[in-house]
Amino acid sequence: MILGGSPSVTFIGAGNLATQLALALHNKGIRIIQIFSRTEEAATQLATKVAASSCTHINNITSEADIFIFAIKDTVLEDVVSKMPFHNGLWLHTSGSMPMDLFMPYIESYGILYPLQTFSKTKEVDFSQIPLFLEGSNEKALDTTRQLACILSPHIYSLDSEKRKWLHLSAVFANNFTNHLYSIASDIIRETGVPFSVLLPLIQETASKVQKLPPLVAQTGPAIRYDENIINKQLEMLKDNPEYQEIYRLLSQSIFHLQKK
Amino acid sequence: MILGGSPSVTFIGAGNLATQLALALHNKGIRIIQIFSRTEEAATQLATKVAASSCTHINNITSEADIFIFAIKDTVLEDVVSKMPFHNGLWLHTSGSMPMDLFMPYIESYGILYPLQTFSKTKEVDFSQIPLFLEGSNEKALDTTRQLACILSPHIYSLDSEKRKWLHLSAVFANNFTNHLYSIASDIIRETGVPFSVLLPLIQETASKVQKLPPLVAQTGPAIRYDENIINKQLEMLKDNPEYQEIYRLLSQSIFHLQKK
Repeated sequence: MILGGSPSVTFIGAGNLATQLALALHNKGIRIIQIFSRTEEAATQLATKVAASSCTHINNITSEADIFIFAIKDTVLEDVVSKMPFHNGLWLHTSGSMPMDLFMPYIESYGILYPLQTFSKTKEVDFSQIPLFLEGSNEKALDTTRQLACILSPHIYSLDSEKRKWLHLSAVFANNFTNHLYSIASDIIRETGVPFSVLLPLIQETASKVQKLPPLVAQTGPAIRYDENIINKQLEMLKDNPEYQEIYRLLSQSIFHLQKK
Repeated sequence: MILGGSPSVTFIGAGNLATQLALALHNKGIRIIQIFSRTEEAATQLATKVAASSCTHINNITSEADIFIFAIKDTVLEDVVSKMPFHNGLWLHTSGSMPMDLFMPYIESYGILYPLQTFSKTKEVDFSQIPLFLEGSNEKALDTTRQLACILSPHIYSLDSEKRKWLHLSAVFANNFTNHLYSIASDIIRETGVPFSVLLPLIQETASKVQKLPPLVAQTGPAIRYDENIINKQLEMLKDNPEYQEIYRLLSQSIFHLQKK
């Protein structure tokens, strides 16, 4: 499929991940052929940045690219793949939780390029720091996926769909749920009149600590020994917000249980 | 109390915070008189580092210092303060959740120096980045506390005990509970055979994002729209661990509720 030189890529999707991935590939000299998005603004915006053409109807995707990357929401992935015109090439998706085999009815050569990171449209990320998890429908598909991945990052792992699901679940805890605890902290700190920004060094240090210590060892706070005196006082403070109270109770218990293990 | 020049300090406690605070003050030229800890090894270890004497019996604390800093666990603070020999000077504690008035029966001049950060004994921290929250039993006590705090950090706030309790509670979410989510992620990722270290760039980026965006805006993941399809699949994956399953369910609901607000 790829005869000498680098593969060319078309993107299905123009969201946060598609944007960052297309930009990173473009900056590495990979030719981006086309950007498809139902939202015209998103499609043209990204297409302009990576010198590609854009389209808003899936039937207008051309056959020109070597690789077609579906970087779209999990909820619409299967539907969009089913509507994709049949273009020979390698079809990839970038989802942590969706199986590789959803491509099976449509194409022979397919695979996964799952970057373990959180993306924003505007904040550029350094792909060379991002672990990439790959899977391929056959050796050749995996090789081509690896060839593309290597351009982006040295941190490359082969992982099957079942294990990738667990990896993605661990990332939900480390990223989505962690961010929500920041939101709760930001909500609670309003009681003090002090700005949320005073918590930023603590948030930063908490994340830095586990770069060196296992999180189980880095754990501090009253829940380690389930110090009822302090825990009950803090539960009482949250009595007007039963949801936060329950989160406090459950996480404190869980800290205690994990430390005892 | 402090006649020209800097105050001298005695520490009651030799744990993580006492260690880092004593080291930081010592490095700024503040004279550390004595380190008290019931554990002889901890007392002498820290005392050696900061050129102080050490003692393991509270009655052997001398009257020499201008400031006595109680940097000990919340659970023993009141008991240790009650056993402290009466030495005139400024008595401070460093706890986020304990009221200032626990000193009232014993001394006239007392206050709070609460650094909003997590400390390890071995990992040095840059105090100039740490927000310090102060309180004083009277103007003079607050002034002296501020004088000491200014040596350490430009980020200084006056905050009463009631508000400090809320600040501390928000820190429990941003630090203790966040670290526990890292532990859960580390536990779950074992299923994949991939090392926990692959999550570190994600953890780092999640913490970095909220340095620029409010956490409510930075939130991503299936819970934002309460995407039942994905959420139910992930709940099913956790069926052998009801505690993690309940944490997943509760945090997903809470994300959804907060985004709707």
